[in-house]
Amino acid sequence: MAFEGEGTRVEQVMAAIRQRIAGRALQPGAKAPSIRAFAAAMGVSKSTVVEAYDRLTAEGVIQARRGSGFYVAGRAPPLALADIGPRLDRSIDPLWVSRQSLEARPDALMPGCGWLPTDWMPQDAVRRALRGLARAAHANLTDYSPPLGSPALRQLLSRRLAEHGVEAPPGQIMLTESGTQAIDLVCRFLLEPGDTVIVDDPCYFNFHAMLRAHRAKVIGAPWTPCGPDLEVFEQRLIEHSPRLYITNSGPQNPTGAQLSPVVAHRMLKLAERHGVAIIEDDIYADLEIEPAPRLAAFDGLDRVVHIGSFSKTLSAAARCGFIAARGGWIEDLVDLKVATSFGGGQLAAELTRAILTDSGYRRYLASLRERLARARGEALRRLRALGFEPWLTPQAGMFLWMALPPGLDAAPVAQRALAEGVVLAPGDAFSLSQSARGYMRFNVAQCADGRAYDVLERAMAL
Amino acid sequence: MAFEGEGTRVEQVMAAIRQRIAGRALQPGAKAPSIRAFAAAMGVSKSTVVEAYDRLTAEGVIQARRGSGFYVAGRAPPLALADIGPRLDRSIDPLWVSRQSLEARPDALMPGCGWLPTDWMPQDAVRRALRGLARAAHANLTDYSPPLGSPALRQLLSRRLAEHGVEAPPGQIMLTESGTQAIDLVCRFLLEPGDTVIVDDPCYFNFHAMLRAHRAKVIGAPWTPCGPDLEVFEQRLIEHSPRLYITNSGPQNPTGAQLSPVVAHRMLKLAERHGVAIIEDDIYADLEIEPAPRLAAFDGLDRVVHIGSFSKTLSAAARCGFIAARGGWIEDLVDLKVATSFGGGQLAAELTRAILTDSGYRRYLASLRERLARARGEALRRLRALGFEPWLTPQAGMFLWMALPPGLDAAPVAQRALAEGVVLAPGDAFSLSQSARGYMRFNVAQCADGRAYDVLERAMAL
Repeated sequence: MAFEGEGTRVEQVMAAIRQRIAGRALQPGAKAPSIRAFAAAMGVSKSTVVEAYDRLTAEGVIQARRGSGFYVAGRAPPLALADIGPRLDRSIDPLWVSRQSLEARPDALMPGCGWLPTDWMPQDAVRRALRGLARAAHANLTDYSPPLGSPALRQLLSRRLAEHGVEAPPGQIMLTESGTQAIDLVCRFLLEPGDTVIVDDPCYFNFHAMLRAHRAKVIGAPWTPCGPDLEVFEQRLIEHSPRLYITNSGPQNPTGAQLSPVVAHRMLKLAERHGVAIIEDDIYADLEIEPAPRLAAFDGLDRVVHIGSFSKTLSAAARCGFIAARGGWIEDLVDLKVATSFGGGQLAAELTRAILTDSGYRRYLASLRERLARARGEALRRLRALGFEPWLTPQAGMFLWMALPPGLDAAPVAQRALAEGVVLAPGDAFSLSQSARGYMRFNVAQCADGRAYDVLERAMAL
Repeated sequence: MAFEGEGTRVEQVMAAIRQRIAGRALQPGAKAPSIRAFAAAMGVSKSTVVEAYDRLTAEGVIQARRGSGFYVAGRAPPLALADIGPRLDRSIDPLWVSRQSLEARPDALMPGCGWLPTDWMPQDAVRRALRGLARAAHANLTDYSPPLGSPALRQLLSRRLAEHGVEAPPGQIMLTESGTQAIDLVCRFLLEPGDTVIVDDPCYFNFHAMLRAHRAKVIGAPWTPCGPDLEVFEQRLIEHSPRLYITNSGPQNPTGAQLSPVVAHRMLKLAERHGVAIIEDDIYADLEIEPAPRLAAFDGLDRVVHIGSFSKTLSAAARCGFIAARGGWIEDLVDLKVATSFGGGQLAAELTRAILTDSGYRRYLASLRERLARARGEALRRLRALGFEPWLTPQAGMFLWMALPPGLDAAPVAQRALAEGVVLAPGDAFSLSQSARGYMRFNVAQCADGRAYDVLERAMAL
């Protein structure tokens, strides 16, 4: 037991040194803190620091120089996302839910996963579109796409955006290989390492992971049932001069809340006053019943960049995302896309266009929304029976943000459930301030199998 | 005339300030050089600097503060690739050839383009594979792929790599959405802003554009018919301590030269001594006749990362690339891929696997190599008739690196040809040292149409 505790402390010291190197507080070639000083600073024994430094030396992270102490190795270690930013408990790492969901065995139950089950997706429409492409004499099956992406699909997206009040001519729309790649490109375009970015707390966990990769300083603003808490949001703007705010306008991930028009208006005024750019990630648009206001519609694509994709409702195997932004930005984003991924995704674009223009797609969406509403009611009933309470009852989308019974911590419950083959999404994965340990996100479409509730109940009882 | 010269000097001053801001020598909020000092430093009149500062102020790049001079605006301008690094002439910008080729009208002639004509690509095999996917009961048409990508395709790639002597078990192979994305991910993983990278001079122009996006310092080593010039290569390692070297091992882009085993061995020893990582971009592997040595085979995937893709021979509309690397790196690369593009490309992976395992693909490759050999002979004959001479006669691949008749500059020739709808690839687009203005790259597969030679001849005569 003593030895195990000792091991943990050694690892804490190792992690602290790695973090300083990753955060560039210790540059390559710099002298590491002395053993005596670091032992005092960390509140551990000198022998613990000696052991940690020895192991870091064996790993090549630091080097001992005879008689003069330890130095950071000549080269910074390669970028490991897990080492950047505050070290989080393994179960609430921003990548934990993604990787568990993506790696899950076919028979795993995944109430925590962020997408629809295979048999909820429009399989027949995709097969029909594939057959159509195989037949079409003029389909582009082998060539690169033009830099902005398929003109026909951009034309269609422009019309669809207009239905949401977003005026984006096809020349201001650039196709990408996914919504995630779209956000990543905009971050590459707008952010310098060290820039500050606001996210909602809670928000989609992958925003945290991606912003770490950009070496951004991430701060959170509490999310309310109508949008960001404007008082705190303004404070953050004044204190931190952020460059960028990333948010959802349709059903928010993970809470399902939708932005109100009044909050949208006031938030945009604050953003304008403080010179903040905004990414509006709108990938759940097709699940909405009462459309929320679009920031890009209010703002006229001035400081708002609008992101969409069809991975959630059409196919995540042939992905296609897009960016709508002001004209001058699109031109530079095209250069950046060509430099970092060249032009591609034409087949997915053709497939997407074929399905979007298939009259069956609107019918599929209508029945999907109804199916989600039924599944939401059923999941709410069964989770309430286990003592969960909804933070809000969403009008649309696939998520429920549920408070656990008082005193229960979502992380160990998720870990225990995982051991029984059930992937859950513990609240702190979504929360920058780590203040959501009493919450879990459930995907109502993935909650049909009663075994998930049995496993959840056992994991909560332990 | 005087006015035009003045305009050019004003733009030079503007470019110099923009470069300092892009390179962070002038941070946001910093005072710009005084008009007097900067006029002296640039060897221009004070009124030239005044005009340049006025225009930069109008653009919002700098701000005048009453009585105290000019300051860099509070926010760095967003990343525009064209502003990073030395300002190049528009016609030899690293993105020029890509964008002209990708944007070309369907009837344009593109001897400068880097891929095969549509009717050289395996259209029937792609159509067959699409029909097969539409039929297959268990094909994944709508789901995300696992983090490493399709296990079946990785298994196949592992076997194909073994044929080149590269031992990469499927767990050390990660699929990406393209070869370009693969290189970009490895750069994100290995590079810090400001790190130094060696490229071949000449090399694929997109390496320059991509490394700018990574804010890397790029240095070149002259490329010889057997690989890099080892004497200069070693000097560069000693002087600049680069982190990374990016190269091709199969037919090199743009010269078509292949690395010799002796140069490969010596270069790897130098890289090891100086702690340099290597990206081996092997996307032309399937065009080879006599296989070149693979760095990854010599090195055992220790410091070499091996990149491949099928965009050049199978489809650029459904792209699929991959990374083979040491085990510890793959795990971190997966995190980075999930964070910046999530898991995708499953449909392209299924399509790729279907075509690679179709016996027709090897037959297609065999006939493609023969067709390229014939086209090479024909293009050589016609270009020689115009006064071009090959730097080397490649054994494989689609490129010819041709010296123009003495005294001719490729850039204005390319610009004149573009005005007549012919996209050429001027040498300096590939050359970091800008020492290839007397060269052009020709794609022999895109040189069949006699009109291209007519336009070229006229453009050279002007």
